[in-house]
Amino acid sequence: MTTPPTLAEIEATRARIAPYVLETPMLAYYGSAVPRRLPAGTEPVLKLELFQRTGSFKARGAVNVMLSLSDAERSRGVVAASAGNHAMATAYAANVLGISAKVAMPKSSNPFRVARCRAFGAEIVFADHVGELFDLVETIQRQEGRVMVHPFEGPRTFEGTATVGWEIGRDAPDLDAVIVPVGGGGLISGIASAIKQLKPDCAVFGVEPAGAQGMTQSLAAGAPLDKVTVNTIADSLGAPHHRAGSLALVQRFVDDMVTVEDQEMIDAMAVMFGDLKLAVEPAGAAALAALLGPLKSRLAGKRVGIVVCGTNIDQSTYCKLLGRASPEK
Amino acid sequence: MTTPPTLAEIEATRARIAPYVLETPMLAYYGSAVPRRLPAGTEPVLKLELFQRTGSFKARGAVNVMLSLSDAERSRGVVAASAGNHAMATAYAANVLGISAKVAMPKSSNPFRVARCRAFGAEIVFADHVGELFDLVETIQRQEGRVMVHPFEGPRTFEGTATVGWEIGRDAPDLDAVIVPVGGGGLISGIASAIKQLKPDCAVFGVEPAGAQGMTQSLAAGAPLDKVTVNTIADSLGAPHHRAGSLALVQRFVDDMVTVEDQEMIDAMAVMFGDLKLAVEPAGAAALAALLGPLKSRLAGKRVGIVVCGTNIDQSTYCKLLGRASPEK
Repeated sequence: MTTPPTLAEIEATRARIAPYVLETPMLAYYGSAVPRRLPAGTEPVLKLELFQRTGSFKARGAVNVMLSLSDAERSRGVVAASAGNHAMATAYAANVLGISAKVAMPKSSNPFRVARCRAFGAEIVFADHVGELFDLVETIQRQEGRVMVHPFEGPRTFEGTATVGWEIGRDAPDLDAVIVPVGGGGLISGIASAIKQLKPDCAVFGVEPAGAQGMTQSLAAGAPLDKVTVNTIADSLGAPHHRAGSLALVQRFVDDMVTVEDQEMIDAMAVMFGDLKLAVEPAGAAALAALLGPLKSRLAGKRVGIVVCGTNIDQSTYCKLLGRASPEK
Repeated sequence: MTTPPTLAEIEATRARIAPYVLETPMLAYYGSAVPRRLPAGTEPVLKLELFQRTGSFKARGAVNVMLSLSDAERSRGVVAASAGNHAMATAYAANVLGISAKVAMPKSSNPFRVARCRAFGAEIVFADHVGELFDLVETIQRQEGRVMVHPFEGPRTFEGTATVGWEIGRDAPDLDAVIVPVGGGGLISGIASAIKQLKPDCAVFGVEPAGAQGMTQSLAAGAPLDKVTVNTIADSLGAPHHRAGSLALVQRFVDDMVTVEDQEMIDAMAVMFGDLKLAVEPAGAAALAALLGPLKSRLAGKRVGIVVCGTNIDQSTYCKLLGRASPEK
């Protein structure tokens, strides 16, 4: 059975990772456009985790995992598999903690993200396909004795992501609900664990792309999917598989899951550009897309936390996606 | 002689405008890219005034001006001339204070900005050219008895913009310097007045586009320029003329002025997109452009406040400009 991090453990984690990660601010979303987009009285408040070091929440878990390594493990280094935000977070954490890092990325990875990883001094190893990433990592683990930093699973990872929920609870104690984007499920596992201990009557919703519903399907199946079909522009939310620990925390603490279409994320990106001045990748807009779409009526008149989980996107892809936004009504 | 707002007056202004404007956060600019862009030890801290209501600092002055109106003046309403951020701020302030507003905009104004003004219930009057804006406003003042809300001049405006400086002084008390974008000069007049009273040894720099150097030239001439030649992509920094009050405060409190080329602002926009996740118009990137350019050596190793004064730009223009950014070195 997976036990969630206790509040005492979350606070200890906060202190431990504090030198390496930021407490990110919250920002109320207001303005003349809001009444046009949402039912009267709905008050969205954004958790700006995109300002986190390396541009996403992943830094919190990666730092916490590496701080828990033994001296022997530290000296052998770490390895991670990721096409994006987790790769950068692992490279960053290894850099600031003086640990060697190897990162396996698919050949098709965005050059912008590969360059960021290299800038932190990580060694990049390319896999031909996403499907081969984890095999490649296993080989490296076996041959070099490196510890794998998992992108979303594990108690140290949940402790890291729980600090996001803890900060939300402190800075916006009056929320009725929080919406969290779901890829593998590590972020929502930590956030929901923290929120439900701090404020049990605050609802926690997860949002997945319609083209990557692995968590929704795992919940329906009652077991973590070993292989997920991924077909979405939100590449940061396309986990290739799910795991028992995060599924258990989602089963226990998450009120409901919803899905959003790619177009809904693109439209939310445009809203964030125009109304909020934030330049985000699709995953970073997923929670707002859920509030503007499937959760709109259900959360009418509520005070809603929107987790902007992160963003790392090149300007050409960003502008191409923005150009596909629906015309303003 | 123009007297700056005293600290007591600034604090009174803060309390007065608090129900209608936000205290905006500050954000440290850090990350793997910073050492590549700036000399070692330089620590930029951004004042995120782009999160202000209506997307720019202008809301502070506009609200403060309107709160000072007599009942008779309030009932006759206000009028303003602006192609952009001041138009929206005036429309917003009038809306929340229940005052009628007429805004004169050039026909060439960005439809995005016109729509925002209309959304706040302002009546828009179009002028054929920017040069005719102030004549049009004078006619409206004369015929309708409306009070003009000046885009950058006047003691109530300086009180409003001084609250930005006051917040910077409170939230980042250890700055060595602050860089402020200059259009008409209302923002820097207020910020410098506050900063120099709070921390006299903190340097204040103004930055103008190379294609709109009205303040630099007014300082050189020792008198406010009555007509400025404007040729820059930073439309929010292209004041058609200057005024004695703001010039006097700049003469008294600003350490130096620098200029940046359009390309330097575009490159700073790209840095803000990639490193800071902020989508800003050229004016919003001007202060960072100054630090990355003309002030780079001079402020090496210093802790520098960067005023992100605001942004309201449509996505097509934004992406066109981003596409012109210099390749990363």
